[in-house]
Amino acid sequence: MAANSFDAGIVSGLSLADFEAAAERIASDIVRTPVLPYFGDDRRRIMLKPENLQPLGSFKIRCAANAASMVDAATVGRIATASAGNFAQGLALAARRRSIPLTVHVPKTAARVKIASLSALGAEVVEHDFDAWWAIMTTRETGADDGSFIHPVSETAVVAGNGTIGLELADQLPSLDTVVIPYGGGGLCSGIALALRARGVRARIVAVEVATATPFSSARDAGEPVTVVRAPSFVDGIGSTRVLAEMWPLVSKLIDEVVIVSEAEVRSALHSAFVDNHLVLEGAGAAALAGARKVEGDTVCAVLSGGNIDAATFAQQMAKAEGSTAP
Amino acid sequence: MAANSFDAGIVSGLSLADFEAAAERIASDIVRTPVLPYFGDDRRRIMLKPENLQPLGSFKIRCAANAASMVDAATVGRIATASAGNFAQGLALAARRRSIPLTVHVPKTAARVKIASLSALGAEVVEHDFDAWWAIMTTRETGADDGSFIHPVSETAVVAGNGTIGLELADQLPSLDTVVIPYGGGGLCSGIALALRARGVRARIVAVEVATATPFSSARDAGEPVTVVRAPSFVDGIGSTRVLAEMWPLVSKLIDEVVIVSEAEVRSALHSAFVDNHLVLEGAGAAALAGARKVEGDTVCAVLSGGNIDAATFAQQMAKAEGSTAP
Repeated sequence: MAANSFDAGIVSGLSLADFEAAAERIASDIVRTPVLPYFGDDRRRIMLKPENLQPLGSFKIRCAANAASMVDAATVGRIATASAGNFAQGLALAARRRSIPLTVHVPKTAARVKIASLSALGAEVVEHDFDAWWAIMTTRETGADDGSFIHPVSETAVVAGNGTIGLELADQLPSLDTVVIPYGGGGLCSGIALALRARGVRARIVAVEVATATPFSSARDAGEPVTVVRAPSFVDGIGSTRVLAEMWPLVSKLIDEVVIVSEAEVRSALHSAFVDNHLVLEGAGAAALAGARKVEGDTVCAVLSGGNIDAATFAQQMAKAEGSTAP
Repeated sequence: MAANSFDAGIVSGLSLADFEAAAERIASDIVRTPVLPYFGDDRRRIMLKPENLQPLGSFKIRCAANAASMVDAATVGRIATASAGNFAQGLALAARRRSIPLTVHVPKTAARVKIASLSALGAEVVEHDFDAWWAIMTTRETGADDGSFIHPVSETAVVAGNGTIGLELADQLPSLDTVVIPYGGGGLCSGIALALRARGVRARIVAVEVATATPFSSARDAGEPVTVVRAPSFVDGIGSTRVLAEMWPLVSKLIDEVVIVSEAEVRSALHSAFVDNHLVLEGAGAAALAGARKVEGDTVCAVLSGGNIDAATFAQQMAKAEGSTAP
């Protein structure tokens, strides 16, 4: 079934009331994560927003729950999305709580464990060849009468849900001057930036990319989205090959700075989060901390986007960090 | 130098005002830890108080900072303690912040890394043969003119500092009916129990011991402290060989129930805390979660006492948990 539209203009017009309404909608779905001092830096200027402590281990429950809440279930009847990752998991959980039937379109390459987990949460899973799946992502057309389509990134309700992190930061950290956010699809950066602005907070918005895939910094250099190579990495939650065209007008304006971190720096941050703060981070979450360690600022907050990393990968990276002299 | 006294009667007479004063004294030393839902249980009746998120990775900063604050530095000049663990680390950090010189008496068997860490925090470290060190622990007499002695467990200021966890729980979890606490020296259980009572909360106090060392449940069975065997275990933060005589009058009255967990259950809880909640726990902290999984109650809170575990031990236990079918 067709498709919500996405208009960067509408998104950038999100008001404080929109973000506050989102926060209210999702209050019983999420954890209001604390702001914790980072103990691995003697200067104590870095603060952590540990979204790895959310249900399902990432910030995605915020945007998913907000999107599920905004669907008029009585009219629409059901919802659909195209994602195989944390967003779909969050949407499945939020939809189940609201008794809204959900169809998730996934590529056949998706990990079996993720598909099983979606099914366990009550979602109907439909598998596609990768190209057909990617077509759904770009056209929002699933080819089936499966309800209102919710895009995992370019979706006004998704950006508004992500923005609730910004609202919390405005309350929790009045002295915030720099916020460091992993750049995935741009929805997390945009939501936080817009919500902070709506609250009148003039913090610098710093996006983080890993050196293995730098679509955003490459787009900034080129003045428009360009296709980049994505090298294999244990940091699998961020790092696409190209900034989504519809996100570019937003992210190019809202993000003040981009910092590129090496895999070794991410590994070192993952290790430090374990040793110094006793938090489990996935690569994207650790990338935010790695970025925060590199940027200037008196009160820097790293948004630790998630903690979904398998134990074997985690142990491997920890051992590598302990064996190396990486920063 | 001689020695504060410890009187169970004084401790059990701690009032709400005493706990509130402690909370105020330590406010800038500690993290007011959140209460998080535990996501590894579909019934969602278990809540977590993650004290592993504290500075230095354990609740000990609470009692150490309170004890350091209550010393009249102008009169006494300096303080001393006998501990090689988290308490001494916390006291060293709190004393440094208050510019109070600290001497830490440790057994020669203490890990070099812990001694180095105490020195780095500015403490003077004095090593003793184990028997001489144990004599200091039991007599509070260090044999030197090194200031007011602060016992790591049987110390009114220590129990009051631990009680700040109870105050927070009373605010954060009005529906609390059961609180599950690792039994180490008894100071954590006592402090939380007394503070909850002072706040009028009638929650059941459940102590947790690991099957490898059960001094408290053995004392309950015998009606008085008895010496038990302590088998080697990766759970090294709790499990002494005998309940301290001076703590028995307190803990025998304040603790309603004791649950014994197996090493396999602790390992499974450690694994679940990683996978489901993305928290790093040490054995004692995981034991609290393991206990919470075994007890009845509609709103059960596990006090996750700490997260100080070395990466190799952690990886080993995680791998063992993934390879087994332990509960």
